[in-house]
Amino acid sequence: MAKIADSYFKADPWKIIEEGFNADHSTVAESVFSLGNEYMGVRGYFEEGYSGDTLQGSYFNGVYEKKKANAPGYKGIVQETEFMVNSLDWLYTGIEAAGEKLDLSKVDFSDFRRELDLKTGLLKRCFIWHTKSGDVRICFERVISMTENEQASSLLTIKSIDFNGTFNVKSGLDFDTVHGGDKKLWNCFEHRAEENLCHIKGKTVATGMAVESFCAFRGSLVNKASESTGVKEDKKVYINYTLNLEKGEEVKLEKNVINLSPLSDLTAPLALGELENMSFAGVYSKSGQWWDETWKRSDIEIIGDLENQQGIRFCIFQMFQTYHGAVKGTNIGAKGLTGEAYNGNAFWDTETYCLPFYLFADKNAARNLLYFRYATLEEAKNRAKALDCKGAFYPIATISGRECCDLWQHASLQLQASTAVAYGIWLYEKITGDTEFLEEYGLEMLIEISRMLATRGDYNPDRTEYGYYCVMGPDEFQMMVNNNCYTNYMGKFTLEYTLHVMEKMAKENPEKLKCVKSTVSFDESETLDWREKAEKMLILFDEKTKLFEQHKGFFDLPSLDVDSIPVEDFPLYSHWSYDRIYRNNMIKQPDVLMFLLLFNSSFSQDVIRANYEYYEPKCIHESSLSPSVHSIFAEQLGKYDEAMDFFKFATRMDLDNYNRNSGEGLHTTSIAAAWMNIVYGFGGFRSDGEVLCFAPKKPSAWDGYDFRIVYEGAVINVEVRGSEVTIKTLGGENLRVKVYGAETEIGGKETVFKIPA
Amino acid sequence: MAKIADSYFKADPWKIIEEGFNADHSTVAESVFSLGNEYMGVRGYFEEGYSGDTLQGSYFNGVYEKKKANAPGYKGIVQETEFMVNSLDWLYTGIEAAGEKLDLSKVDFSDFRRELDLKTGLLKRCFIWHTKSGDVRICFERVISMTENEQASSLLTIKSIDFNGTFNVKSGLDFDTVHGGDKKLWNCFEHRAEENLCHIKGKTVATGMAVESFCAFRGSLVNKASESTGVKEDKKVYINYTLNLEKGEEVKLEKNVINLSPLSDLTAPLALGELENMSFAGVYSKSGQWWDETWKRSDIEIIGDLENQQGIRFCIFQMFQTYHGAVKGTNIGAKGLTGEAYNGNAFWDTETYCLPFYLFADKNAARNLLYFRYATLEEAKNRAKALDCKGAFYPIATISGRECCDLWQHASLQLQASTAVAYGIWLYEKITGDTEFLEEYGLEMLIEISRMLATRGDYNPDRTEYGYYCVMGPDEFQMMVNNNCYTNYMGKFTLEYTLHVMEKMAKENPEKLKCVKSTVSFDESETLDWREKAEKMLILFDEKTKLFEQHKGFFDLPSLDVDSIPVEDFPLYSHWSYDRIYRNNMIKQPDVLMFLLLFNSSFSQDVIRANYEYYEPKCIHESSLSPSVHSIFAEQLGKYDEAMDFFKFATRMDLDNYNRNSGEGLHTTSIAAAWMNIVYGFGGFRSDGEVLCFAPKKPSAWDGYDFRIVYEGAVINVEVRGSEVTIKTLGGENLRVKVYGAETEIGGKETVFKIPA
Repeated sequence: MAKIADSYFKADPWKIIEEGFNADHSTVAESVFSLGNEYMGVRGYFEEGYSGDTLQGSYFNGVYEKKKANAPGYKGIVQETEFMVNSLDWLYTGIEAAGEKLDLSKVDFSDFRRELDLKTGLLKRCFIWHTKSGDVRICFERVISMTENEQASSLLTIKSIDFNGTFNVKSGLDFDTVHGGDKKLWNCFEHRAEENLCHIKGKTVATGMAVESFCAFRGSLVNKASESTGVKEDKKVYINYTLNLEKGEEVKLEKNVINLSPLSDLTAPLALGELENMSFAGVYSKSGQWWDETWKRSDIEIIGDLENQQGIRFCIFQMFQTYHGAVKGTNIGAKGLTGEAYNGNAFWDTETYCLPFYLFADKNAARNLLYFRYATLEEAKNRAKALDCKGAFYPIATISGRECCDLWQHASLQLQASTAVAYGIWLYEKITGDTEFLEEYGLEMLIEISRMLATRGDYNPDRTEYGYYCVMGPDEFQMMVNNNCYTNYMGKFTLEYTLHVMEKMAKENPEKLKCVKSTVSFDESETLDWREKAEKMLILFDEKTKLFEQHKGFFDLPSLDVDSIPVEDFPLYSHWSYDRIYRNNMIKQPDVLMFLLLFNSSFSQDVIRANYEYYEPKCIHESSLSPSVHSIFAEQLGKYDEAMDFFKFATRMDLDNYNRNSGEGLHTTSIAAAWMNIVYGFGGFRSDGEVLCFAPKKPSAWDGYDFRIVYEGAVINVEVRGSEVTIKTLGGENLRVKVYGAETEIGGKETVFKIPA
Repeated sequence: MAKIADSYFKADPWKIIEEGFNADHSTVAESVFSLGNEYMGVRGYFEEGYSGDTLQGSYFNGVYEKKKANAPGYKGIVQETEFMVNSLDWLYTGIEAAGEKLDLSKVDFSDFRRELDLKTGLLKRCFIWHTKSGDVRICFERVISMTENEQASSLLTIKSIDFNGTFNVKSGLDFDTVHGGDKKLWNCFEHRAEENLCHIKGKTVATGMAVESFCAFRGSLVNKASESTGVKEDKKVYINYTLNLEKGEEVKLEKNVINLSPLSDLTAPLALGELENMSFAGVYSKSGQWWDETWKRSDIEIIGDLENQQGIRFCIFQMFQTYHGAVKGTNIGAKGLTGEAYNGNAFWDTETYCLPFYLFADKNAARNLLYFRYATLEEAKNRAKALDCKGAFYPIATISGRECCDLWQHASLQLQASTAVAYGIWLYEKITGDTEFLEEYGLEMLIEISRMLATRGDYNPDRTEYGYYCVMGPDEFQMMVNNNCYTNYMGKFTLEYTLHVMEKMAKENPEKLKCVKSTVSFDESETLDWREKAEKMLILFDEKTKLFEQHKGFFDLPSLDVDSIPVEDFPLYSHWSYDRIYRNNMIKQPDVLMFLLLFNSSFSQDVIRANYEYYEPKCIHESSLSPSVHSIFAEQLGKYDEAMDFFKFATRMDLDNYNRNSGEGLHTTSIAAAWMNIVYGFGGFRSDGEVLCFAPKKPSAWDGYDFRIVYEGAVINVEVRGSEVTIKTLGGENLRVKVYGAETEIGGKETVFKIPA
């Protein structure tokens, strides 16, 4: 089925621009214009209020509410789920001109322009309001600090064109927000609104999580106000400024905000101290500097394709906004901090799709991301118990570490969250060489995951084969299958890697090993058990056809021509009987191809070709993560047109609202896949082998492109132009890598390679 | 795991006797002492009220409420379920002696005896109440009419032993009943309580189903009362009688009741007319006569085993109480009309386990039972649509014909309800020769079921095999399997039988066939399609081992030694992680053995032996229907001790509360299996072949036994004594049957056969 762009924003290499406002795009624009800094996020909603279609969302990482699950009460089925809860509106503003209320759904206005500057993280919105008493130009600017988690600042500029009269601006902090139609998720206490300062504190009703906020006002509007009144309502506080505005006059209101969540170390007195020193210019400049440095390390430049240039920079921008290792023990929700779909839950996308991006941008961020799994190991152990397994079973969807998926057919059958953690530990150690993390945290997780893998699986009747029964692999259209190839392959890898780490540590750091073993009460018989299970792990591979069978019996399933499905049947979950989806060989997303990607260097081109050509036609890509994986393989197999076809909308999924649901929030983990699509796809980058590999091709539609990755202290810069590739490093030592399969050294001096035909 | 009798009732060939009251057994006794007549049922609760453990249940067949399902909102998943709702307490009574309230949980009493007479259907309870003002003997008797659906009657006898004082008796009709903790299921209107007559009408809140009730009082208590006051409360009406009772005096209160539900044809005026002519003695006598005639046709006598004698008569009694074809279009709930577990829903047990009992007791009752499926054909067609199938998909659990199971893994995957309807039609026609039913109703159902079967299944990739993917066969421990042998076998049978009926009708009644085809808009291409699918239906059978494979891949499943499961793990659904149950070759109940039973004459003894010996050790009998099926096969295979072992508690499952849940209601469909166990098991009866077959064996623990079945207008009486079997018929023509494999004729003259060694 063809996905069609809903083009709305203006193309620009560094900016997302909305010229003129179309209310039909209001929620999509809110998602796209989201700002965030990992600690908190806020959608691009109109701070002055909007009575049209809006999702006025403001979120804090790790701040969640809970609700009773909609599920039968059998053992191991989740009975309570957690969701990232819409929190206080710290942008809360209200404007009246001569008694007329500003609401862009109702008033007359023109010259609307909203602009997100990806280079600096500034969001600016201006328009001319044609009030009954004359025209006024209004501009809102906002920025969230990338360097001080709790800080954000906004600047309101009001300039009268020909207006003369009373102007009223109220601004403050508001907990009276709505989540999924429910208004009663916050209890409020400690209100203060006086002397240009507001303070409020709220707690979620069921989970009792506290969010506290301070804001201070200054600027010419404050000085000019004839009256300023502090107002305290049940769940909001604000200052009401009244002033007389004359033709040609311009006033500014600067609002500096400090938001404290349970993930902040700041105390209220410290926050007040910080607040005194804050200014819009200061936050913007410091944050802008952070962005400047970040772009130097992580920009991708595309020459001759403005739309994808804009798209990929938007992706990179959103990745860093969502996560950059700023807070200890956070994870990445499927929608980041930009909406409420998927309940703000993080999935195994984190280790599989997002980790590579951070590994090659900032290894501390990558380390911190993995640390989330260590911080939640106890919850994973509880989950294993609930599922009658030993060790640790990582949740398929989570905020706090607890399983939040109340569909047992996913939560109880998908082992890939657990094996993805093992894969993440392996890849992180391989790329960073950080054995300290491995020994301090990694091994403990590996042992607990291996214990789960050794108890969740079973031998076949004559004990010649070990494998996993009743599982759902990455492909969620094959449920309750036996010996899913991905699951078995990853299980074997995890058991073997765990044993390998223990062997290595026995030589290199026996004391620490002893200590870890004692912590987990390791029984030496586990070694033998794991070795046997890893050895006997059934990997369904046909030597003749070179095909991995997705699961036992997959080749015998009824064959469905996916191209014959009418376009109006999509998404299938909404139009097909639930069970019908599972009764054939259609697949939703890569499964065999997924482990061929994760361990790419372990498979020959023949094997990859056979499996790609077998599985690709069966895939309907109902997961937004699917096309990029296929694009990477198409590129590897020299199917360049196909690769470009799959890539097509990867960078612009949200900008062009391809799935028609970007209004609910951005497809954050797909954004990571778009980055992989360029770097691993067109760039031919591989990071799972002995050394880094590069094999860039130039899509014919592009004049050229650059990408850069950080590795061993160096920024590796890859520039593709015409038929040549130039690689050089900035900082760090010279590096041995493979380019087009041949080992070579790269360094500060440019090395030029011919792109093979 | 051993199931242990919780012996409580006194053994007796014709009565269930409770001597002395043990409050720990109160709800079990309520279930066991339930009365019913298919139209309505009432548990054996204390009519005067009881503050101890009680489920004060009074039900009307087909009267249900609905509630939102606890299930995800995907297509085809049931979003609203229906449950048989606790209705009015028409036995409502209150007694006070000199201001002291009668409540057997609180007062001092002795000589308690409760007795259910299976021969007549009378329930009687007597005790001596030691009031503070002297002793009084109280007796309650009740009977529900087996001949007039709406009628019931009760008789209260109060005899003062040495009591002198004021006695207060109130009695009436009460809608203030509780269902699953919820009190607000009935709205009441039209109250009347005057001149020894009460009248009340109620409607269920959500489904708006009306129940209306009248009761009239008479007897010496009425005459002697110094005061009688009609009382109307919000949801109840009653008459309050006050009298002075003296030492040695006895008074009686007779309460005649008419209950109208939507399944009654009576109007209120007619009901009032009937009520005038009712008396306790009249209802009891007419109903007792009905029972007398019924026992003549359907009794089973066991000599030398009082417990099983009592047990099997209790089973037969409950079968007729639950259902005997008294009301058009009723079905049989899993708990009959004796409790609220399983929501009063009927399952495919109806056609599979219950139908044979009625077929050989009263063919009109059997016909009416099948008619339920015709009456609900439209709902089955709606259900098929919801599941993206053509034709009719019969619900796995239902009251009104709509699917009431909100677990999609059962409701969407189990095709056996539909094929059981086809089997029922086939068996009914075979035994009764009633082609009129087949042509008028049966064929239309068969065609719609065949349409479903032709669209729910799939061909394998090379179109050589047709079968059903993602199904759950009778064994509910194997979920989402492919080519379940039972499902495929029954699918093939249904398609072939439908084609056969159409061919036969084309010759014998072409006009009617044309008419049915027109009704269902039959397309002639369907014939070819069904023929091909039936021919290519994959039946997994291994010629060498003679084994049917329960489903594709079953033989490769991890092997679980079911005897190794600790007894405290049962029931597994409560103690094992939900998914864990499904990951091995353990089975919950017969699956392959089920179709070997349904089509017993089609399989050789070798095939039956091989499959029994393979599957029996894997079965944990977590369904109460399972042991009887295994007992029948053990008998057929000459494993007599094993047969007796499985039979052991079949007739006394509820009397001895083997599953410790009889308090929730009786295991009505298991009761049918117990009957099958004796007739088809020990009696070696088979009804699926060309003629009826008998091959009785005598369990060594018994001195002998008789059973009788109604067939072609005759009652066939089979008497087993010592080493001989005597068969004779009462009424009807001589019959050709097979006895021990040899064809022979039986008739009014006794024929004696030697039991083979």
